[in-house]
Amino acid sequence: MSHNTFGHLFRVTTWGESHGPSIGCVIDGCPPRLPLSEAVIQPYLDRRRPGQSRFTTQRREPDAVRILSGTFEGLTTGAPISLLIDNTDQRSKDYGEIADRFRPGHADLTYTLKYGIRDYRGGGRSSARETAMRVAAGAVARQVLGDGMRIRGALVQLGPHGIDRSRWDWDTIDANPFFCPDAVAAAEWAAYLDEVRRAGSSVGAVIEIHADGVPPGLGAPLYGKLDAEIAGALMGINAVKGVEIGDGFAAAALRGEDNADEMRMEGDEVAFDSNHAGGILGGISTGQPLVARFAVKPTSSILSPRRSVDRHGQSVEVSTRGRHDPCVGIRAVPVGEAMVACVLADHLLRHRAQTPDAPERPRLLRN
Amino acid sequence: MSHNTFGHLFRVTTWGESHGPSIGCVIDGCPPRLPLSEAVIQPYLDRRRPGQSRFTTQRREPDAVRILSGTFEGLTTGAPISLLIDNTDQRSKDYGEIADRFRPGHADLTYTLKYGIRDYRGGGRSSARETAMRVAAGAVARQVLGDGMRIRGALVQLGPHGIDRSRWDWDTIDANPFFCPDAVAAAEWAAYLDEVRRAGSSVGAVIEIHADGVPPGLGAPLYGKLDAEIAGALMGINAVKGVEIGDGFAAAALRGEDNADEMRMEGDEVAFDSNHAGGILGGISTGQPLVARFAVKPTSSILSPRRSVDRHGQSVEVSTRGRHDPCVGIRAVPVGEAMVACVLADHLLRHRAQTPDAPERPRLLRN
Amino acid sequence: MSHNTFGHLFRVTTWGESHGPSIGCVIDGCPPRLPLSEAVIQPYLDRRRPGQSRFTTQRREPDAVRILSGTFEGLTTGAPISLLIDNTDQRSKDYGEIADRFRPGHADLTYTLKYGIRDYRGGGRSSARETAMRVAAGAVARQVLGDGMRIRGALVQLGPHGIDRSRWDWDTIDANPFFCPDAVAAAEWAAYLDEVRRAGSSVGAVIEIHADGVPPGLGAPLYGKLDAEIAGALMGINAVKGVEIGDGFAAAALRGEDNADEMRMEGDEVAFDSNHAGGILGGISTGQPLVARFAVKPTSSILSPRRSVDRHGQSVEVSTRGRHDPCVGIRAVPVGEAMVACVLADHLLRHRAQTPDAPERPRLLRN
Amino acid sequence: MSHNTFGHLFRVTTWGESHGPSIGCVIDGCPPRLPLSEAVIQPYLDRRRPGQSRFTTQRREPDAVRILSGTFEGLTTGAPISLLIDNTDQRSKDYGEIADRFRPGHADLTYTLKYGIRDYRGGGRSSARETAMRVAAGAVARQVLGDGMRIRGALVQLGPHGIDRSRWDWDTIDANPFFCPDAVAAAEWAAYLDEVRRAGSSVGAVIEIHADGVPPGLGAPLYGKLDAEIAGALMGINAVKGVEIGDGFAAAALRGEDNADEMRMEGDEVAFDSNHAGGILGGISTGQPLVARFAVKPTSSILSPRRSVDRHGQSVEVSTRGRHDPCVGIRAVPVGEAMVACVLADHLLRHRAQTPDAPERPRLLRN
Repeated sequence: MSHNTFGHLFRVTTWGESHGPSIGCVIDGCPPRLPLSEAVIQPYLDRRRPGQSRFTTQRREPDAVRILSGTFEGLTTGAPISLLIDNTDQRSKDYGEIADRFRPGHADLTYTLKYGIRDYRGGGRSSARETAMRVAAGAVARQVLGDGMRIRGALVQLGPHGIDRSRWDWDTIDANPFFCPDAVAAAEWAAYLDEVRRAGSSVGAVIEIHADGVPPGLGAPLYGKLDAEIAGALMGINAVKGVEIGDGFAAAALRGEDNADEMRMEGDEVAFDSNHAGGILGGISTGQPLVARFAVKPTSSILSPRRSVDRHGQSVEVSTRGRHDPCVGIRAVPVGEAMVACVLADHLLRHRAQTPDAPERPRLLRN
Repeated sequence: MSHNTFGHLFRVTTWGESHGPSIGCVIDGCPPRLPLSEAVIQPYLDRRRPGQSRFTTQRREPDAVRILSGTFEGLTTGAPISLLIDNTDQRSKDYGEIADRFRPGHADLTYTLKYGIRDYRGGGRSSARETAMRVAAGAVARQVLGDGMRIRGALVQLGPHGIDRSRWDWDTIDANPFFCPDAVAAAEWAAYLDEVRRAGSSVGAVIEIHADGVPPGLGAPLYGKLDAEIAGALMGINAVKGVEIGDGFAAAALRGEDNADEMRMEGDEVAFDSNHAGGILGGISTGQPLVARFAVKPTSSILSPRRSVDRHGQSVEVSTRGRHDPCVGIRAVPVGEAMVACVLADHLLRHRAQTPDAPERPRLLRN
Repeated sequence: MSHNTFGHLFRVTTWGESHGPSIGCVIDGCPPRLPLSEAVIQPYLDRRRPGQSRFTTQRREPDAVRILSGTFEGLTTGAPISLLIDNTDQRSKDYGEIADRFRPGHADLTYTLKYGIRDYRGGGRSSARETAMRVAAGAVARQVLGDGMRIRGALVQLGPHGIDRSRWDWDTIDANPFFCPDAVAAAEWAAYLDEVRRAGSSVGAVIEIHADGVPPGLGAPLYGKLDAEIAGALMGINAVKGVEIGDGFAAAALRGEDNADEMRMEGDEVAFDSNHAGGILGGISTGQPLVARFAVKPTSSILSPRRSVDRHGQSVEVSTRGRHDPCVGIRAVPVGEAMVACVLADHLLRHRAQTPDAPERPRLLRN
Repeated sequence: MSHNTFGHLFRVTTWGESHGPSIGCVIDGCPPRLPLSEAVIQPYLDRRRPGQSRFTTQRREPDAVRILSGTFEGLTTGAPISLLIDNTDQRSKDYGEIADRFRPGHADLTYTLKYGIRDYRGGGRSSARETAMRVAAGAVARQVLGDGMRIRGALVQLGPHGIDRSRWDWDTIDANPFFCPDAVAAAEWAAYLDEVRRAGSSVGAVIEIHADGVPPGLGAPLYGKLDAEIAGALMGINAVKGVEIGDGFAAAALRGEDNADEMRMEGDEVAFDSNHAGGILGGISTGQPLVARFAVKPTSSILSPRRSVDRHGQSVEVSTRGRHDPCVGIRAVPVGEAMVACVLADHLLRHRAQTPDAPERPRLLRN
């Protein structure tokens, strides 16, 4: 059992607080002889880095990762991989207000209730800063998965505003500050989020992750189901309140005839007519694209005063100034990708252990 | 790492196939000196038991549980608790068709792809029959939680038909065959589901679980978050495709001001004005009621023929006859309750380990 | 974390008390498509079964194992394997004395101190009867290991009496009631143990396990070392007080020159001149035979009265009548074999996971 | 499952190679509000630090530990504690010889066989340098255990030379370079080890660890036994080949009457007449002092040439020059203490979880 470790055979243990000297993680179980250097990891961190547009927090840090162990001459050795990022922009300030007051909707309260002590500087351990290490670990996980699997995420809803899926274009993702696959929606969102930001408010979002090239057979019934572990991984990201696989909640309204993904043979391979299942049946991958969605609530750090209490048991008002993301969902896109990558890497190793003689992509028998 | 074990300190390992001689589970980590006998567990199994109305499968079994170890003179001893239910209605039949053909949307396919072998009789290990052991384990978990915590579930959507929340009445739950808290909706659902059932079709559902009396402080950031583990637990139930905590996906559309659960002091205690968070902040319980929802897809066992393939790589049509639930979501209500109970029992033990001197329900300090 | 589970990828969870209705185990993680039936397991249980000579307890039970799940048409399916043995000879007797009194050197005392409750009938959970399930699990582990690995145990010391290693003959093992590889020593031991038995006393023993055919590369530095896990597994057997790998404690007295196992090339393979290391270096197997030894103390169930206390806090005398092994070390031989088999099966699966492209028996490169 | 993590609720994950930039560990599960600073940990590291006498390696490093996370204002917060030590004396040298050649008796060979790659600089991950982090973690574990428990180690055999136990004096331990409790023996050992050192040879040792003040009830039958986990922990230390609890192998030669630790009431408490069991019965602590011993083999880094092979499959001779410990057993004393402290801290937390209402030191009932 662990509180700060994620995964079973591909294990990621993170540590660090928002305003401590550094944050880091240890990755245990990475197979040997995979190419790995800082240059492999850094691009993923850069995608998540704050301060890249006016729509994310203005905290500015290079987030330069260092590999402290587990590689030799550019290859993994099978030993634990230690990654570290120094915190360079812990702006000196007076934390007096949030040291004593609990922001409504924030972990301030529950950390205090649980531990009786809390590092309040910048949110301490509960800060989204920790997700930088998830992204770093995800980059290592991608090395385990190899080039055959591709994991991409997109913002499909910003506040109440969705996208037009007929305009979905993966190439658009990196051409706007929202990771939005619909260029038209992205333009509209910019105006909308400017208003939210100027009002000192915040707004939620929905992120969708696709994993292509997932071989069939990954997953481990009944309590290590691929969808269950993805759900746990995504729900564990800061501020997430909902997770869906495939059709998700919409499947509840369907009848069996409409929800069935019909199959046919196409040459030697099974082909599907649809993908309501999101690539997972019975907790095991089908070989279709894996599709998962998660909803992020609006951050609780807002300018409008809200009624709360302080640690002395007094009713107070709280209003949060400072550098905050008007929509934390935007930077959750690379984090969601990373979590899915880590779950898949873990399950790939588990699959190799339990079914060693199974081909990576088994075909149906023609016996 | 385990494939068939759930939980960390309160650990449940289930085993058994739908048409094997019996199914069972082993519960490890249950504290000693708790009252436990078959009479404590059986009522929960009876709620889940099939064949109780025309809306569930007509398989008829007493599902009588036996305790084979771990108790002495009516009390738990701290030793592992072995529970066993004999399968008595494994109807002898010709499985030839589903032995070779994969039902669209069913784990038939993925078990074959993963393992290269499959016990096709009644769905084997992937059958919802396994959930009986989850319910049994949930009953033991409730003994660990004690009388102060109450975990109840309700069906809040059947196919496309929801409920009127202003009519919510917990007392209605057991007065209709749907675990529906809205008596008016329940009556309408009966007519609707009769039509579905007669058409040999199936339909999905949404279930909502409430846990009252959860002490603040349960949960374990960052990778053992209470909401993350509940999400994983619920997503791991057969046929589940989505999970929400509190406002869930609706939170994405809110602004920060609207999503904040404002607080005030009421005497010595913190009181909340709302519960958008569903009782969890930062992965740790707040002391408010815990609210989780999950969506169940329509079962893939339907009468209408659907295009598929067989294990010899031929295109075929599949139509499932036999005893099936027109809406598996109904019997998922006690299963969902049980999973939440197990997660809470696990976290209660974890909390005691890490914060031994914390009072069970800490109050804010007035220092 | 688990109290009653052994292993990581090949996981064995045992349950049951000496005088409960049955004992059993669940094996999770066994690869699919391995031959498995009761006939595969039973011979190993028969070797451990009590009552086969006058030197083991006269409790007589067939110890007939049943497979309740996880196989289909004679092959494993990848689903959990549930094994069960009914207790048939729980002789009805008055437990009054040991219910209240603590046998010196017995777990009676510590179970009471820990749990505040104890199933005292026949030792309850602390009875060596539980080791039957270890042996059963070991038989399944051998199926995972395949025919290339052979795991054999021998009694090399009975009380103060050792063997002459120059007479070691594996074929003698099953020709005497002691699993002794030295026929001359076995004859002498019979007379000695008769005396011990008639005196109502007990005596300790040392067991040695050899595993041949272990491929190089099994093990997982630094906290899953093969030798560390074997040490934990053997020390966890009832009454064990010491464990050695290779030369063990004798290595402490050696100088580096004498302890080094020199190597040379023999054709394409590395050959060793000696095996002080017992087949393990740095926690990883070398490909040489794995050699482990463990010491068993004399059982605390003896006829001679000993001073003790009872649960009411009174000083008392305790003398144990009834059916007991004069030397529990004898039946520990098949148990030790089983534990080593389980550890090796676990590490074989772990090795496949982390180094998937490594050949099962890598050779040194001639590049 | 983890390769580089130790413990279950008090979890230590170490990382780093001998000649990498730094080594470190992450401690997860430490309860909140315990005093912790570098000053608490450093003294234990100083005891293990090399270069303090002519009998340990002349590598000279301050081994100054830094706490990077998990504390706030001098107290633990419940968040993971990251510890880091920079490597400052990675002497630049030509590793050509050991890069290609395998030292007999060294992990050089098995790391290569397992991973197909190896950081040969100073032994890489297999270097005893890693044990610095075990000692650091042990210092944190002692904070968890509190002042009531005291864990001390002593060297009781150096090569073939033992001690006179009648001269045992804990105060002598730190007054000689061997952690030897017998001042007379220590003087003799100095002359002996000088000879070994000058010959470029090495020698083994036996270390004994005592833990006083261990409350009864710690341990977790059947597969988390306190003695089994201590055995695994000690056998996992570099170069260890044997482990004993209490009388250890000597118990095999005893009869039941002689091995029984008789008990009597002394006031309200149970008192024992002897401690053959070493403080553990049935895997659970009795409240007596816990006694464990382990044997360390002579290091394989010696000056005398030994026959071996290289990675190209050629027969070669190997002779190790450079800075090495003539007896690695000396510095294993603080490491052994640390491992026992970690196991006890882990079990203390586990005990609190499973038996929350049990007093820390239960007494026998006088009902």
